[in-house]
Amino acid sequence: MAVNLIGPQKLYPIAGVSVGAVNAGIRKSPGEDLTVIAMSEDTTVAGVFTQNRARAAPVEIAMRHLFEKDARHPGKKRALVVNSGNANAGLGQRGIEDCLYTCQLTADSLDMDPCCIIPFSTGVIGEPIPLEKFKKHMRSCVESKSENNWLAAARAIMTTDTVPKAVSKVIDIGNSGAITITGIAKGSGMIMPNMATMLAFIATDACIDTDDAQNFLSAAVNASFNCISVDGDTSTNDACILLSTGNSGVRIGPESQSALKQAFVAGLSQVMGQLAQAIVRDGEGATKFVTICVTGGKHYDNCKDAAMSIANSPLVKTAFFAADPNWGRIYAAVGNALDADFDIGQVSIRINEIEVMKGGALASGYRERDAAEAMKADEFTVSVALGADPDIQATVWTTDLSYEYVRINADYRS
Amino acid sequence: MAVNLIGPQKLYPIAGVSVGAVNAGIRKSPGEDLTVIAMSEDTTVAGVFTQNRARAAPVEIAMRHLFEKDARHPGKKRALVVNSGNANAGLGQRGIEDCLYTCQLTADSLDMDPCCIIPFSTGVIGEPIPLEKFKKHMRSCVESKSENNWLAAARAIMTTDTVPKAVSKVIDIGNSGAITITGIAKGSGMIMPNMATMLAFIATDACIDTDDAQNFLSAAVNASFNCISVDGDTSTNDACILLSTGNSGVRIGPESQSALKQAFVAGLSQVMGQLAQAIVRDGEGATKFVTICVTGGKHYDNCKDAAMSIANSPLVKTAFFAADPNWGRIYAAVGNALDADFDIGQVSIRINEIEVMKGGALASGYRERDAAEAMKADEFTVSVALGADPDIQATVWTTDLSYEYVRINADYRS
Repeated sequence: MAVNLIGPQKLYPIAGVSVGAVNAGIRKSPGEDLTVIAMSEDTTVAGVFTQNRARAAPVEIAMRHLFEKDARHPGKKRALVVNSGNANAGLGQRGIEDCLYTCQLTADSLDMDPCCIIPFSTGVIGEPIPLEKFKKHMRSCVESKSENNWLAAARAIMTTDTVPKAVSKVIDIGNSGAITITGIAKGSGMIMPNMATMLAFIATDACIDTDDAQNFLSAAVNASFNCISVDGDTSTNDACILLSTGNSGVRIGPESQSALKQAFVAGLSQVMGQLAQAIVRDGEGATKFVTICVTGGKHYDNCKDAAMSIANSPLVKTAFFAADPNWGRIYAAVGNALDADFDIGQVSIRINEIEVMKGGALASGYRERDAAEAMKADEFTVSVALGADPDIQATVWTTDLSYEYVRINADYRS
Repeated sequence: MAVNLIGPQKLYPIAGVSVGAVNAGIRKSPGEDLTVIAMSEDTTVAGVFTQNRARAAPVEIAMRHLFEKDARHPGKKRALVVNSGNANAGLGQRGIEDCLYTCQLTADSLDMDPCCIIPFSTGVIGEPIPLEKFKKHMRSCVESKSENNWLAAARAIMTTDTVPKAVSKVIDIGNSGAITITGIAKGSGMIMPNMATMLAFIATDACIDTDDAQNFLSAAVNASFNCISVDGDTSTNDACILLSTGNSGVRIGPESQSALKQAFVAGLSQVMGQLAQAIVRDGEGATKFVTICVTGGKHYDNCKDAAMSIANSPLVKTAFFAADPNWGRIYAAVGNALDADFDIGQVSIRINEIEVMKGGALASGYRERDAAEAMKADEFTVSVALGADPDIQATVWTTDLSYEYVRINADYRS
């Protein structure tokens, strides 16, 4: 029951990035579930990972293969390997060893060094991954590689997702040519990324040094995946990766305060924002897509905390499901998010353009039926003004809490 | 669908405390909804209130009438006035004025000064309270006062509660006589008290100075109402009050490290613990009563944060509802609660006595059907050992997340 989410439109290939995907029988539901993304030499790889202390084994190994001192692999060919259906989390040393074995299998099929393989998993926590299935299907996965295979990869990383998520964008940069960005993502539950069970892989043919790519990625994640919440649970396996092949010949550096850099950063933000919102639209049991916009904090964290407090309140979310303008629950959630010294006397709340609360009290002229009518739509915006600095703001995207959310998560493994 | 919760057993009167309750038509559902609790001279009153910054008007006024410099009212007769059905929250200055008017009405009927009236409200946020109903019914409420009317008061403070909550205890202190403690509470949604929409009123005939009573109450709240969560939402109206009439003639002071003081503190903790657990057993849509016990933090907050993270995770709660030992969700919730420098490699998890995870990995011999069997009961315990100091522990009581929770909160006002 995804909210206004259709499948991917045209996906542009990224020269230097080839994608393989097969059905290895790892995930219970049918379809592809094993993916390999192989990159040409000199592709830089930037990544951000879950802040959950219970990191899955593939997160540990991916970070080791990306960030440890001798792990820069300058110039070397590298590859990502991704499975859905099993998170390889909560398994201690066995999980680590199994993960390293999948890296070895991938490396063997691609004729690479195992430390050049960056692994990812998503699915049920606490069940050993089925190594024999990786062994049986890895070679055919690698053999299925193509630059035109992004849609299959978007399908292969799905778990409870109902729609594959992929966005592609060509940025025309005039005389300098064009840069292409293509990204895929998955996720619909255990979603409050604080990097999310989300995975996102974005590739571009721009030429970007690793440190710069890491900075661009972190900034874009903070404004996209870190601003969504389905259920307030941060996964053990979240990861977001940016691959930059350089094959466009267009260089984006830290120094370029140019229109070029701005165009790239804007394009990256758009692709990642659309992918993040797609995860919310496909949130488990979602019947509403709600934008929470909070302004007027003393600092950004006031606005972000208040927005997340609203987005994560079960009482607010059930009211969204019922299209019930029970704004007292929104007001209570704001009150819970703020420091003891924050004066809440001037809080204002709007649902779309309807003033509900103004200056800490019920807005004059407020008619509940107007707000109820606005909330019947499958998308609406809740705006909160905290009353301090109007120039400070945070926006978060979330869903309602429906019977279907309970059904999906009470039935997930059965 | 309260979990193993029956109505109150014998409630002992507290000499000096008389209770009135009538149906004033404030709450939509039938029954008493307006309560007055009047205390004899020299009764001390201690209170703890919600930490939500969006405090309801009666919370503001109650704190003013209890804690402001000229508000000690030494020796004076005082009274509590409580309504259910309307929270008088989110209404700005109007809410304050309306609340002061209800204090005036109560004071007039009791021939007291308005500043000796301590007001409480619980119910829907954001709707002005119906003053005419207070005006019409206050005198009959006051006239219904009796020392044997605690059960009616327990019913009168209910909102979505399905069972009235009251506990009474006589502490035999040998030659010195006996002390009686009687308490009532309400609450079943918007429950993560961070003192909680809970209200609790406890009275004793012990003789306790106000400062001491405040200390005893705060300690007992931290170990009872502040250790429960139904949905992770902290209300705008939570309050817990301890009345000490002194009519037993037994004095409990700060100095008395005696068996006497210990007996009183233990008795108070038992009464408040049972009331807190009753709120969870009657939690909205609850089908399970789950005890979360976390040990082995570096400090108490590690244990409490991990326990609350488990208790508040929608994914854990839906798994509880399904009796699904999806322990990966518990493990992920623990990981989300801990600081970046906390080593989670030695975490162990048990469901009742069944070892699920040990030393950071799946316990050998673990059979999922054993855990599933344990979780089919309507009460079970999840124990987590974090691996640091085994002597540090926190216990939290919570419920599952059921279809019924969604139904109640999507329908609450309709």
